[in-house]
Amino acid sequence: MNETIKTLKYRRSVRAYQDKPIPPEIIDTLIHSAMRAPTAGNMMMYSIIEVTKQEVKEKLVKSCDNQPFIAKAPLVLVFLADMQRWYDYFTHCKVPQYCKDHELTFRGPQESDLLLASCDALIAAQSAVIAAEALGIGSCYIGDIMENIETQRELLGLPMNVFPITMICFGYPKSDQAPEKRKLISRFPQQYIHFHDKYKQLSAEEFEDMYSETLETRYKTRKFLGEATNLGQHYYLMKTGSDYSHEMVRSVKVALEDWKKTQFD
Amino acid sequence: MNETIKTLKYRRSVRAYQDKPIPPEIIDTLIHSAMRAPTAGNMMMYSIIEVTKQEVKEKLVKSCDNQPFIAKAPLVLVFLADMQRWYDYFTHCKVPQYCKDHELTFRGPQESDLLLASCDALIAAQSAVIAAEALGIGSCYIGDIMENIETQRELLGLPMNVFPITMICFGYPKSDQAPEKRKLISRFPQQYIHFHDKYKQLSAEEFEDMYSETLETRYKTRKFLGEATNLGQHYYLMKTGSDYSHEMVRSVKVALEDWKKTQFD
Repeated sequence: MNETIKTLKYRRSVRAYQDKPIPPEIIDTLIHSAMRAPTAGNMMMYSIIEVTKQEVKEKLVKSCDNQPFIAKAPLVLVFLADMQRWYDYFTHCKVPQYCKDHELTFRGPQESDLLLASCDALIAAQSAVIAAEALGIGSCYIGDIMENIETQRELLGLPMNVFPITMICFGYPKSDQAPEKRKLISRFPQQYIHFHDKYKQLSAEEFEDMYSETLETRYKTRKFLGEATNLGQHYYLMKTGSDYSHEMVRSVKVALEDWKKTQFD
Repeated sequence: MNETIKTLKYRRSVRAYQDKPIPPEIIDTLIHSAMRAPTAGNMMMYSIIEVTKQEVKEKLVKSCDNQPFIAKAPLVLVFLADMQRWYDYFTHCKVPQYCKDHELTFRGPQESDLLLASCDALIAAQSAVIAAEALGIGSCYIGDIMENIETQRELLGLPMNVFPITMICFGYPKSDQAPEKRKLISRFPQQYIHFHDKYKQLSAEEFEDMYSETLETRYKTRKFLGEATNLGQHYYLMKTGSDYSHEMVRSVKVALEDWKKTQFD
């Protein structure tokens, strides 16, 4: 099998790292791999913050839903959807004045810019993750960086047109965490994810089939949360309806309002 | 050099394809690579639509800012941020009733869900792109799928809690488009993208330095758009302030409003 396909096929998230730093030249290889990822119009609407200070990592543990392994990761990269650099450059280049002079309305960052910049940031992020995997370095995405926006802004010095769309912890896997030692977690069957020509909403029977393996393997002996009587109720309580998810809803609303409020001149 | 690192390093977007189909088993390899990508809580908040009908590809040419090469791509995959499947499953599992019975507020999809589902979709998308590259298949992201949401919904049968966050065209590169035959497009220097511990807003001098290579190489003989007198004005007119970008602003606002409006029971 092609080496890259093999790397993609056997990757699992790693949350337990050896106490062994990642050499600077390897960090550069990860950053360079990210920077070669495609980016809309070659505009690179993203930035990457490497968190080096232990006290900042400790604070990120708390602001990212209390995940202690973050503080033990030798390398932590925050990927930012970044329109700040472009709007600062537009200001530097007197674009608002150009627009006035030419009877154009100068527009500030909008929802679509956040999405497009997030595309850039995430595509770059996954290139870094795959580069790491190819070099024997494990990784884990932390979506919780989208929570507690006020804290993350203060910790990382983020202006309003920069949004932390994801964070990634990297490190050499502890020996029992190496890809060849771990079983892959099953995914939903392909026919419920991959459609042809039209989106397909699923029927009751299809849902039963789609979730049957999860139920049989992962919930054979595991109790559902609260008084949930089925897997959908359990997932809602554990994920979508949980405290961290409510915090993410709040945080992203604040971030998006601030993102659109910024005035440039 | 490690094969995967090399693949990442020399990738360029490919828009000119050989008239040669991608075999079904190779398409499956790309889909499987996408499906092994990490996903938040193993929830797979994304779907993939493979566009096989030529007339749909032709319509996507128009709805994605008139890019004729889309119709010539042997493989077109649309990556969807998808909360529909989960909310349909929550409905199937009577989660709204559970919430009522337990004095919890059942919440519908919000902005944060769109972002989290987009993370899932884009991380999967980039795994497919890298798998393709490793197998000698070129690719090009089309961010313009975020425009004209009403048309895209109709073409692809998308319900309200599904958002087309990106589209990718794939195909074997024409001979002059092979990676070894093409010079890489330069990226901005690393120090303006990769920061340590704190975000950094750039000074006038840093902006001049950051854009100097772009100016010297790509704009030596090329005229700026309209009456632009510098690169920032040119980029604003060409990208952020252009017609397609205004359409993307509108389209995403509509999609986000509809996304939040959905009622479940």
